[in-house]
Amino acid sequence: VASVCETYSISTEEFASLRAKTVAAKATAYCPYSQFRVGAALLAVDESAAGATTWVSGANVENASYPVGTCAERVALGTAVVSGIKKFRALGVATDVSPPSSPCGMCRQFIREFCGTSMPVFMFDRDNNFAVLTVIQLLPMSFGPDSLPSPEELLANRPT
Amino acid sequence: VASVCETYSISTEEFASLRAKTVAAKATAYCPYSQFRVGAALLAVDESAAGATTWVSGANVENASYPVGTCAERVALGTAVVSGIKKFRALGVATDVSPPSSPCGMCRQFIREFCGTSMPVFMFDRDNNFAVLTVIQLLPMSFGPDSLPSPEELLANRPT
Amino acid sequence: VASVCETYSISTEEFASLRAKTVAAKATAYCPYSQFRVGAALLAVDESAAGATTWVSGANVENASYPVGTCAERVALGTAVVSGIKKFRALGVATDVSPPSSPCGMCRQFIREFCGTSMPVFMFDRDNNFAVLTVIQLLPMSFGPDSLPSPEELLANRPT
Amino acid sequence: VASVCETYSISTEEFASLRAKTVAAKATAYCPYSQFRVGAALLAVDESAAGATTWVSGANVENASYPVGTCAERVALGTAVVSGIKKFRALGVATDVSPPSSPCGMCRQFIREFCGTSMPVFMFDRDNNFAVLTVIQLLPMSFGPDSLPSPEELLANRPT
Ligand SMILES: [Zn+2]
Ligand SMILES: [Zn+2]
Ligand SMILES: [Zn+2]
Ligand SMILES: [Zn+2]
Repeated sequence: VASVCETYSISTEEFASLRAKTVAAKATAYCPYSQFRVGAALLAVDESAAGATTWVSGANVENASYPVGTCAERVALGTAVVSGIKKFRALGVATDVSPPSSPCGMCRQFIREFCGTSMPVFMFDRDNNFAVLTVIQLLPMSFGPDSLPSPEELLANRPT
Repeated sequence: VASVCETYSISTEEFASLRAKTVAAKATAYCPYSQFRVGAALLAVDESAAGATTWVSGANVENASYPVGTCAERVALGTAVVSGIKKFRALGVATDVSPPSSPCGMCRQFIREFCGTSMPVFMFDRDNNFAVLTVIQLLPMSFGPDSLPSPEELLANRPT
Repeated sequence: VASVCETYSISTEEFASLRAKTVAAKATAYCPYSQFRVGAALLAVDESAAGATTWVSGANVENASYPVGTCAERVALGTAVVSGIKKFRALGVATDVSPPSSPCGMCRQFIREFCGTSMPVFMFDRDNNFAVLTVIQLLPMSFGPDSLPSPEELLANRPT
Repeated sequence: VASVCETYSISTEEFASLRAKTVAAKATAYCPYSQFRVGAALLAVDESAAGATTWVSGANVENASYPVGTCAERVALGTAVVSGIKKFRALGVATDVSPPSSPCGMCRQFIREFCGTSMPVFMFDRDNNFAVLTVIQLLPMSFGPDSLPSPEELLANRPT
């Protein structure tokens, strides 16, 4: 753990908090359809409070129409973004299975919009063991904000 | 306003707060693609605090891959649900256009999962004027949790 | 049935075909997670073939990450739109439950983009009985293409 | 091109057809909001026709409520799956930008459900140049059907 923390520039205390908050967030899931609880927690920087460390949690919120539900990672990031938090140092994701589950592709794309490509994503399994990958490792050659010219530019340069 | 408040069992002070919080939430939107800011606020009951009134806000959080973004209403409800709030008295939605915009169908479905069919949804336009409809008026003959038998039940009774 | 057909300007033969195609489409569903089969069929006009009647079917296509799946109605309409079909006279949706299920809110929104507000949506239950509602009855006071000014217009007129 | 084709077990004629069909599919996009046209084509195997080669195309179908739209890759795969095609040899994706865009994370997840991890995804830019990555390269350590125990199993083994 110590060397992992050093690699990703977080303290061992921060890692312990991230794990605890991520695992605890599973209890807040609304998942009557899949029974697959997912907890998420963000280690973030509150730029409005002199760069103080701050935490935001989330969990999956399902829907009777399955495509309408939202995953844990997107609930956590959505909550953070609208509260003005835009700088993230690590994301934790926890499930009740082993080996650990990774974020789905939709969430990887959502993460990509707000988190640096080298930010670590810690994935905890049912026994709190973990794997870790960076954003760019999870979504290589990603389609991101830079990939998208403005509608005007696209229309003006459309191939014929 | 007074008679509307009476119809939907909220006080005029609560209505004023709902309008202020809904309109203020627009400023927290992340919408570089559409530039269409949407704010949302929930008037809710905190059952863990002796039924005290509580508020949760949200705004739209877009993505370079448009289908991956989340609307304001779903950000607010997702934040509320994972924080343990499950009882809602009113939802406000505000945009920068006139007449007021209504929640999209996807959000109506998300709202349907958590809010009573008679809960009012107040829709504020760019001048803070509003229209109001209940959940069931927004999503008549809805597909909800009760429409969905368990996978086992469905499999056992599949028509041949 | 005859009077319903008259109301919605389709022949009884067209209704019979719509019902048969909608119910048959259930067999093409990929729904290992919900086991909730949904079939959809569109009665459409092929404007590239002198207005000939044409049909397009769909079914739900689920995903291990539930929010990533697609409903039957959106599969059918997506297939139709990219094949150049843009004019629709009726949509059928069939499930294995009774009373009949209606399209989820997300699909109502997708339908709204391409189908007239008075187009009928026929909902068939497990015994092939049906209910019918128009697009505007399913999504009253809808948020549609007309609700959305261009990003430039929104930016220029943002309230201060 | 010849060596790429050999690597991925497709003929140069198949590659040429894939490129042509993928690029042509851009013209069928419905993208009034982003103006970002995306075309997709699948080289597939029709198991109901003695393993004959078959093709399925798609394009992005957007919505006034951005999250409700569907990407090109999901339209193509949805069309294929409900028509009974389940075996895929290659996917092509084409846009009007350079360098080539990759599938968004949501589509990578949708692809993962139906295509082998070693299936190639060819990404064509505005000049028909391309990059290629396999499914597993696009979505490493993916969350797939095997990651998801049944609801009953999850409920029975929930950590306490
Ligand atoms: Zn996800
Ligand atoms: Zn919405
Ligand atoms: Zn639906
Ligand atoms: Zn996509």
